[in-house]
Amino acid sequence: MPIRFEIIAEDSGTHARAGLLHTPHGLVETPVFMPVGTGGTVKGVTQETLESLDVQILLANTYHLYLRPGHELIGAAGGLHCFMSWPRAILTDSGGFQVMSLKSLRRVTEDGVWFRSHLDGSSHFLSPERAVEIQLALGADIIMALDECVEYPASHETLKRAVTLTTRWAERAKSSYTAKKVSGVRFQVSARNAASESRDTDAPWPDENGPRDSGARHQTPGTLRAPDTWHQTPDTFPTLFGIVQGGTDKDLRRESAEALLELDFEGYALGGLGVGEPKSEMYDLAELTAALLPRDQPRYLMGVGTPEDLVECVARGVDMFDCVMPTRNARNACVFTSIGKISLRNARYARDPGPLDPACACAVCHRYSRAYVRHLFVAGEMLGAILATQHNLYFYLDTMRKVRQSLLFGKFSEFQSKVRARP
Amino acid sequence: MPIRFEIIAEDSGTHARAGLLHTPHGLVETPVFMPVGTGGTVKGVTQETLESLDVQILLANTYHLYLRPGHELIGAAGGLHCFMSWPRAILTDSGGFQVMSLKSLRRVTEDGVWFRSHLDGSSHFLSPERAVEIQLALGADIIMALDECVEYPASHETLKRAVTLTTRWAERAKSSYTAKKVSGVRFQVSARNAASESRDTDAPWPDENGPRDSGARHQTPGTLRAPDTWHQTPDTFPTLFGIVQGGTDKDLRRESAEALLELDFEGYALGGLGVGEPKSEMYDLAELTAALLPRDQPRYLMGVGTPEDLVECVARGVDMFDCVMPTRNARNACVFTSIGKISLRNARYARDPGPLDPACACAVCHRYSRAYVRHLFVAGEMLGAILATQHNLYFYLDTMRKVRQSLLFGKFSEFQSKVRARP
Repeated sequence: MPIRFEIIAEDSGTHARAGLLHTPHGLVETPVFMPVGTGGTVKGVTQETLESLDVQILLANTYHLYLRPGHELIGAAGGLHCFMSWPRAILTDSGGFQVMSLKSLRRVTEDGVWFRSHLDGSSHFLSPERAVEIQLALGADIIMALDECVEYPASHETLKRAVTLTTRWAERAKSSYTAKKVSGVRFQVSARNAASESRDTDAPWPDENGPRDSGARHQTPGTLRAPDTWHQTPDTFPTLFGIVQGGTDKDLRRESAEALLELDFEGYALGGLGVGEPKSEMYDLAELTAALLPRDQPRYLMGVGTPEDLVECVARGVDMFDCVMPTRNARNACVFTSIGKISLRNARYARDPGPLDPACACAVCHRYSRAYVRHLFVAGEMLGAILATQHNLYFYLDTMRKVRQSLLFGKFSEFQSKVRARP
Repeated sequence: MPIRFEIIAEDSGTHARAGLLHTPHGLVETPVFMPVGTGGTVKGVTQETLESLDVQILLANTYHLYLRPGHELIGAAGGLHCFMSWPRAILTDSGGFQVMSLKSLRRVTEDGVWFRSHLDGSSHFLSPERAVEIQLALGADIIMALDECVEYPASHETLKRAVTLTTRWAERAKSSYTAKKVSGVRFQVSARNAASESRDTDAPWPDENGPRDSGARHQTPGTLRAPDTWHQTPDTFPTLFGIVQGGTDKDLRRESAEALLELDFEGYALGGLGVGEPKSEMYDLAELTAALLPRDQPRYLMGVGTPEDLVECVARGVDMFDCVMPTRNARNACVFTSIGKISLRNARYARDPGPLDPACACAVCHRYSRAYVRHLFVAGEMLGAILATQHNLYFYLDTMRKVRQSLLFGKFSEFQSKVRARP
């Protein structure tokens, strides 16, 4: 069973829509915010807490899981759902964004990208085919084609080159994915480690010792058996999304979208946004790109953004979001509230008996005070980050719940105005 | 309402007994293990998790809370129960053990102990009266008289001096406590910061700038008001326990116990054990000391120990325990199991699909695998410590549950044999 997307409400004044995304691991109500579980865990919260927050889909990072503990180990454990004991939907990114962020540690070629691990400096090669293979081993519900995401600002030439490379990579990802889907083999632990793929290339990483592959660390055929209580991964094949690039160039965005549409993906992401361009430009590009994509397929804006950004981009036709902001900010004592962001380290909260957010109905705001959570951060206690993360995730998810409700009741514009009026 | 202790079962073959300790914040079934919540939080777990683990009483450290956030702030917040939102019982130590651990940073006088904060080097003075005052502000259900805990090994002379000083301090603690109880004033925020007490002494800390007191940072009368959902502290007065010292000297233990008994405390602690002496000696001293204490009052062995130590000392007549071992070990990836302690960093667990402990019924063992929790530790993810802490606390609490059950069913010796046979 692949994913299935249905639109259940559309706003008359904007491009916003509410939908249902049916996945092999349950229903996802859109627009949706996906908490980021980089290394197979959303930092600071248990899976039980994520369930109690009504998280319906998580994002996990292919790059991180490939390096540690390795996709073969996770594949042998029955996939990421089983490994981390998460019964609901998962989306994995392609690893491209993280690899591109390594800068001096990577080199892009036509075949793919050579990079060095940020953990131990070991050399690795990521190609469109390899990104599919790794993600199939992880076994998420939705996987992404490898793209080249360039920095902001970038020259027209750089953007143009990245768009055409992303298109060629998308073709290769699609054809590799299709071949595996036809063969029915999602993941096979094999002694032939996947680095062999890299040996087909004529662009070896300039390292005297030759490329090493983290896969090689896990050559033993896996024998992991899930405990009875683990959530078994249904025998289904992940769904592949393409990623539209083009930076801030509207013509290139159009070119990228049109080329990907010809490849007929089951969903599309908007990549390379929220990387430093002005907010108004990001909103314009999201609107323009979303409008180029099929109405009846999900649109995913990668790595964006603040709660306000989410609402603005829903209005421009986006259905799915992920961002580290709620979790990363929480660990820095910064919490999102109905009256704006506040930093709990501020001395003004030392004796504040009120909840983190007076308008919040989350379990943290129900029980703990600003004074207490501030004390936890000042004293370096883990519980500070734990509670702030739980609150911030609730705030993001609650914002999206309100977006959906407003769409279902035809009141989206009113809600958008309220959010715009927030401090 | 002070505490009330009733014995509901006694073992015929040992000194073990099961009891009920009625506190202003609920019932505590003894023998009991008290998780350590040093800074007003048991590191890595929420209060909700502690409740789900059926924790009935927590220990909090006076020294840490006095320094940060300050007892006056907590007092103004309505006490520690209110500040940390913990509706069940709390015991605070006197701060003596932490201060004595500072070594080069403290100086013991007849009046009390001068010490420097491990946080900022500021000078402070802790006297028996001051320890009572601070603990009354924190508002625990059970508070401890200031004692002098000496290192192991110590000369007879040192031990003797510490015992007589501890006795004189216990007298002062009791009379200060009684005076406050009679006046009915548990805690009053006052601009006159408590450092004035230290100015009465003729033994100033040798610091050119004179002593500073953390209380001075919080001179403004507190106006903290608890949110409606906070748990209100009943208007009750804490109960004071005395601490028996004497190191490894049996005569001094007897001398200390007898002197304290004359002061008529409502419960007694065994201090200065588990500080490096051989285990068999610790067991002997616990047995000897417990036998000197009134049968109908609770006996608390401070800072001990492994699960096996707890069972052995229950057999010797101890009712209450606290120790950082389950929580500290958890943060170092060391978990307690029915088949012994295991270090989750060990590579042998990398592909282990089993639970942390195959015989454990805790929520962590129900859901997560050794492979996953190991990955969390290797990757430096907070969730590793969170899950291991939850499991270890369950293991300790479950051990004590089984101790109680075995006592109620007259099967304590059988259970003790089983625990002794553990790997």
